[in-house]
Amino acid sequence: MAVLTRLAVNGDRLNDSINRLARIGKQPSGSICRIAFTPETLQARYLVQQWMIEAGLAPRIDAAGNLIGRYAGRFEDAPALGTGSHIDTVPSGGKFDGALGVLSGIEVVRTLRDHQMRLNHPIEIIAFTDEENTMIGCQAMAGTVLADSPERYRSKSGEPIQDCLESIGGNWDEIRTAKRSRSDLAAFVELHVEQGAVLERTGNQIGVVQGVVGIQRKAITIVGQANHAGTTPMDMRQDALVAAAQMVLAVQAIALKMPSHPVATVGYVDVLPNAVNIVPGKVELTVDLRDLYTDCLDEMLQLLHQEIRAIAATTHTQIEIRPLLCVEPTLAAKQVQETIATVCQQLGLSSHSMPSRAGHDSLEIGRFTDMGMIFVPSQAGVSHSEAEYTSPEQCTQGADVLLHTLMALDNLYPV
Amino acid sequence: MAVLTRLAVNGDRLNDSINRLARIGKQPSGSICRIAFTPETLQARYLVQQWMIEAGLAPRIDAAGNLIGRYAGRFEDAPALGTGSHIDTVPSGGKFDGALGVLSGIEVVRTLRDHQMRLNHPIEIIAFTDEENTMIGCQAMAGTVLADSPERYRSKSGEPIQDCLESIGGNWDEIRTAKRSRSDLAAFVELHVEQGAVLERTGNQIGVVQGVVGIQRKAITIVGQANHAGTTPMDMRQDALVAAAQMVLAVQAIALKMPSHPVATVGYVDVLPNAVNIVPGKVELTVDLRDLYTDCLDEMLQLLHQEIRAIAATTHTQIEIRPLLCVEPTLAAKQVQETIATVCQQLGLSSHSMPSRAGHDSLEIGRFTDMGMIFVPSQAGVSHSEAEYTSPEQCTQGADVLLHTLMALDNLYPV
Repeated sequence: MAVLTRLAVNGDRLNDSINRLARIGKQPSGSICRIAFTPETLQARYLVQQWMIEAGLAPRIDAAGNLIGRYAGRFEDAPALGTGSHIDTVPSGGKFDGALGVLSGIEVVRTLRDHQMRLNHPIEIIAFTDEENTMIGCQAMAGTVLADSPERYRSKSGEPIQDCLESIGGNWDEIRTAKRSRSDLAAFVELHVEQGAVLERTGNQIGVVQGVVGIQRKAITIVGQANHAGTTPMDMRQDALVAAAQMVLAVQAIALKMPSHPVATVGYVDVLPNAVNIVPGKVELTVDLRDLYTDCLDEMLQLLHQEIRAIAATTHTQIEIRPLLCVEPTLAAKQVQETIATVCQQLGLSSHSMPSRAGHDSLEIGRFTDMGMIFVPSQAGVSHSEAEYTSPEQCTQGADVLLHTLMALDNLYPV
Repeated sequence: MAVLTRLAVNGDRLNDSINRLARIGKQPSGSICRIAFTPETLQARYLVQQWMIEAGLAPRIDAAGNLIGRYAGRFEDAPALGTGSHIDTVPSGGKFDGALGVLSGIEVVRTLRDHQMRLNHPIEIIAFTDEENTMIGCQAMAGTVLADSPERYRSKSGEPIQDCLESIGGNWDEIRTAKRSRSDLAAFVELHVEQGAVLERTGNQIGVVQGVVGIQRKAITIVGQANHAGTTPMDMRQDALVAAAQMVLAVQAIALKMPSHPVATVGYVDVLPNAVNIVPGKVELTVDLRDLYTDCLDEMLQLLHQEIRAIAATTHTQIEIRPLLCVEPTLAAKQVQETIATVCQQLGLSSHSMPSRAGHDSLEIGRFTDMGMIFVPSQAGVSHSEAEYTSPEQCTQGADVLLHTLMALDNLYPV
């Protein structure tokens, strides 16, 4: 009697690949150092490329150094369905961030091949170049790279981007050729570890990502008057730290009053002269605002400016604000989100809709085509550390969701 | 026709002395470096001793190295009336802090001698040892020096106090003999620059000091949880900086609600890891509370502990507090304060009652006898800097108030 079984990835094979890749760049501490353009990352690219070939993918490298493995579809002229992520890490990274997305993509193709299956659309597995620093790989694909300003894209160790790209088979002079469009990449789905604790805390197995948040990051300088902490009466002070404390609380309050649950952080504070017995004369601090919606970011900035004016007036300080970083948010395509959620239901996995508040390659890819992301839980929300952990079972669940999502999208998008 | 003139110091002579002393230890920047026990300070002591002798004072050096010049009274067995201050400076000091008090005392005696006058009481002009660091001179006189713990009293450059005292004619082994009592020092009046801007701001010429404030200084450690500033939702944070901001504002609010106008300062803040995109996990900060009244200091500390409990609870952080410094306040004698105020009226000088919120030798002397202090304005409140400035006229006014205060006290205290 035949039992009807649902197609599933080979979890052992996937987790073997994750562990095998994690040996490259492994540090004595247990963390992984695979900074883009280093020999370790080149070694990792070589291994992944071999796995692509063994899985029946045809690999190529575009001008931005993106490693792209293509699994032919029944209709080879149809736009591709893309998946992938990155295999570079931060200097002390974990083994799941990025790697899970690339290796799950390969595992999906291995699974299809095990069953002699092809989709209507070609599948592309993409390992993007340098996600953790310049994001040049995904930016080149989105056409947002500044082709006239190579000096903006130095490697972590300061090498010119031209040399960096050449070392991995790319070509800066041709960077524009890496640009893709909706007509050749119909949709892109990235599987990634959450890097936060929302899934763990809410007890969900899969995160259905609503989009990748935008960032407004500002530097704020507060100038008061340094003075003797004994001889300066309270009403004669221009205490820059009192103003800074009001700013810290105002930033928190601004985030809490917005309905879309943005995050807002003062992470850096520098006090001058920073002495026990001197009223602080100057404080530098940073504000980092993140949300899925540009409207919300704009409103938070407006409120921040209001607070700055009010606090400067009441504390008799001068407060200046200047931009450090501005990243526009990218929303996930509704159709892709709904597909992921439906797949979870079908697979009996609990899911939770949530924004991605960390940056990802999908942030850029979503600027020109339909994008979606699948999150799996990060233990205690830890990432960018040797303590980063997602269980083998959770990795397998994520890869299964990716497999069935691509299969479902294959039916939704015209060939 | 004879004109009745009031006795007055010789302002030119006083200011000449101030300027002459200021040449010793003068730095290229214009600041003065006469750290206790250095050759420069020895040279200054030598000069001041010569001036004492020329003014008719008999100098001696006690076991704590205090230089004490005595001007005989009509009743030589009567307890002395003391005045003076210190001639050591901070590493980059000004020429008035301390020096004004010692040199005005000498000028008062010069003036009396010009007119062949003696008071009923002997007068003692005291140049205390190392006011800016160990305060060993005034502490030895008050009997508060820790005679069994010489290691607590190293010089600024780390030399043992035994060697330091020997170099200026003192003797650590005899330190207890420096102790004085009300029976041999009936009252002590110190003239000093304000080192704050209250007189300048209120437009008064003389400050009648109500006492020297006590200090309660604490170190506070706030432990939260460092986390990704993007992926950690606001309601899952244990943000140590948000807790610190609440502490800074609570410390300010505590001072503002007390009727005696204490001061309270958070001057030092250290944030960890202090990165733009990480929710702060740990903050160290200091709290410095100063007031004239022990009751007020105690109440402020109690409120501080309440705030710590409340803030720790609402921010989900752990907050620890530990003592850094505790100095008991000393009140000026009512009789001395009233005498100074009356003298100001008689001399046509405006005066203002105020606490001294900086430490002074009088803090210790007031622990065993009647103490009072006379303040003259500091331009813009600046001190411990080459920009420290009090005009020659203001110095002269201070010395005149000192002269007439000592003359008035001479009549108030029994011989």
